[in-house]
Amino acid sequence: MSSGKILVAQGGGPTAVINQSMVGVTLEARRFRNVTRIYGALHGVRGIVNEDFLDLTQETSHNLELVAATPSSALGSTRDKPDTAYCTRIFDVLRAHEIEHFFYIGGNDSADTVRIVSEQARAAGYPLRSIHIPKTIDNDLVGNDHTPGFPSAARFVAQAFAGANLDNAALPGVYVGVVMGRHAGFLTAASALGKKFPDDGPHLIYLPERVFELERFLADVKAAYERYGRCVIAVSEGVHDAAGEPIITLLAKEIEKDAHGNVQLSGTGALADLLCEEIKSRLGIKRVRGDTFGYLQRSFIGCVSDVDQREAREVGEKAVQFAMWGNADGSVVIRRMGFYSVDYELLPLDQVAGKTRTMEDEFISESGTDVTDAFRLYLRPLLGSGMPDAFRLRGARVDKILAR
Amino acid sequence: MSSGKILVAQGGGPTAVINQSMVGVTLEARRFRNVTRIYGALHGVRGIVNEDFLDLTQETSHNLELVAATPSSALGSTRDKPDTAYCTRIFDVLRAHEIEHFFYIGGNDSADTVRIVSEQARAAGYPLRSIHIPKTIDNDLVGNDHTPGFPSAARFVAQAFAGANLDNAALPGVYVGVVMGRHAGFLTAASALGKKFPDDGPHLIYLPERVFELERFLADVKAAYERYGRCVIAVSEGVHDAAGEPIITLLAKEIEKDAHGNVQLSGTGALADLLCEEIKSRLGIKRVRGDTFGYLQRSFIGCVSDVDQREAREVGEKAVQFAMWGNADGSVVIRRMGFYSVDYELLPLDQVAGKTRTMEDEFISESGTDVTDAFRLYLRPLLGSGMPDAFRLRGARVDKILAR
Repeated sequence: MSSGKILVAQGGGPTAVINQSMVGVTLEARRFRNVTRIYGALHGVRGIVNEDFLDLTQETSHNLELVAATPSSALGSTRDKPDTAYCTRIFDVLRAHEIEHFFYIGGNDSADTVRIVSEQARAAGYPLRSIHIPKTIDNDLVGNDHTPGFPSAARFVAQAFAGANLDNAALPGVYVGVVMGRHAGFLTAASALGKKFPDDGPHLIYLPERVFELERFLADVKAAYERYGRCVIAVSEGVHDAAGEPIITLLAKEIEKDAHGNVQLSGTGALADLLCEEIKSRLGIKRVRGDTFGYLQRSFIGCVSDVDQREAREVGEKAVQFAMWGNADGSVVIRRMGFYSVDYELLPLDQVAGKTRTMEDEFISESGTDVTDAFRLYLRPLLGSGMPDAFRLRGARVDKILAR
Repeated sequence: MSSGKILVAQGGGPTAVINQSMVGVTLEARRFRNVTRIYGALHGVRGIVNEDFLDLTQETSHNLELVAATPSSALGSTRDKPDTAYCTRIFDVLRAHEIEHFFYIGGNDSADTVRIVSEQARAAGYPLRSIHIPKTIDNDLVGNDHTPGFPSAARFVAQAFAGANLDNAALPGVYVGVVMGRHAGFLTAASALGKKFPDDGPHLIYLPERVFELERFLADVKAAYERYGRCVIAVSEGVHDAAGEPIITLLAKEIEKDAHGNVQLSGTGALADLLCEEIKSRLGIKRVRGDTFGYLQRSFIGCVSDVDQREAREVGEKAVQFAMWGNADGSVVIRRMGFYSVDYELLPLDQVAGKTRTMEDEFISESGTDVTDAFRLYLRPLLGSGMPDAFRLRGARVDKILAR
């Protein structure tokens, strides 16, 4: 390692804490005397191929700390999914700038990019150290107890459902909240942590790990509505039928696909509106309301888990330490060591790249429409300190006079 | 005043601080030695006609404080809009229970209910003191500088747009956020307080106080997109064409109407989806995303203005003081006395009841798609302390090598 130049970039959907990881890399790297420059690529891998670099070595530590506490990707992000030719171009740029450490903060697609770049460097005999730093609100990276960004998004979802439940209790009806998560239901399941009293919502939770049947759904809603006089429902945007067809395609005529070949599930209220329409027309319930949490759940400024902030910072720091003191490329993973404590390891890239974790069966109730206590214990410490709490009046009922 | 029985109830849409007012009434009333009982009606006026009362005198002060800090209406709410016959029934129940003080926390419909009940009591010679306590996230009560509930909802909207702007900067495109507010644009305008740097979003704000023209809208979006490479847009759910027809009805085939004869604007993502579709198809912009803030903006637990909490408590306390030491029914209003300080007055009910305030012209920019500095100065102190802030990297650009 001779040039001492480091490159860090951010890929995929932003999170509330992804800047913590970028700042973790930057500040930790500056502690190593062999590091001369720390570059940040603008808009992820696209910024690498375009050579759009910021010199982060010229940032003040004070501003870096303020940026760390700011949500979304301060370097910008991208949805580009590099193929091998794209990765070759990445590698060419890294070599031209004599960059010998490459840190990419992202999800499983980003891990795959790091894997290919790492292989090309090895094949070319170029001394590049490539490290993938985990990030995704979907919590769908294998090898990790959980991923940075998920706890803060989960906290938003839990707080949103805690509030929606209170609103629904004040003005009873059916409330459908649609939550992000294409394949993994972790974020939707986090709605369960917004529940305090036994009759609180969410009364029903629909995850992409279970087949969604409209008739079964309507029967569930009817039963809950009859039992509680109201019903709060959490639905993953990724719910699908037995054939794997997303429920949203039942409605959407024209489906936008992104470069990854994925159907657009976010940024539209169609799924919530479809389900509300079914509940109104089929069950004859009048007050039915649907919200799609959309980008609020990953971008809202001012709803963050302090545990998530700390860990996102640490995976950035550890990535640098693994790069400097280790002898292998890899993906930083979070391991749970206690209730609650974590440690970090470096896994080979091919054990993480391009793979998708979904919710384990032990986290999903027998009914398929709730989570288990194992999931509650898993998630609660991640939400961090200062979770807002909901309280009820306990006042005694007054005897009726006229209607006696 | 002999029976010493007080009734408090909550009407209309819940807010983050409406329980502060209810607890303000309850705790302040207990300081008066002539008060024997404080009843809370369940689900607003409907709870009165059904004689569904809780005895709040049997609540502990500790639990009342916890409930005060909990969003949504702890007594439950209602959308019932009482006609004169309904008000007669209310009055009959108040008389049967020997209730001699009636406090109703709500918007302009609730003020109208209090007005009719007050008139009926006077006509019947029954010694009832009726006080309306202001509450609405729409900020559309006349006579008030602002209304309790609005500052916290405004804070949510400002924080949401601050985050959405960061997200949109990381992954550029067009973002449409639809905000509550049927006739008054205050809450949508609050999005402007999420803006920090000159090129931050929201770049365009559409209020119900101005006619919405689709062609003009598309031209605005195109210009902003060309200028900033992206565009963040705040749209009120109540935007309408020159004929007063809501834009959402352009899309919705079947329109649900509530008991007040109002078109359902909330609880559906249709308006955002319609606008996104127009932007995509007419402007040829690929990445266009829409969110409808829906119930999150009024129910989210954990996003509250401390100023709003304090004032909501004070209007409840003042309502009791006006009732006990004054000699007239009325509506409590908030007056701004300094930057920033408020005081409270009691206005005659007919000066508030059934009237709707909209955004003053001085708060709306000449272009009609932004707010003025007068509005920023008006709103900023209401948002309270601890507003989260966004920071940017300032790092120097690195010279290109390959693309030089």
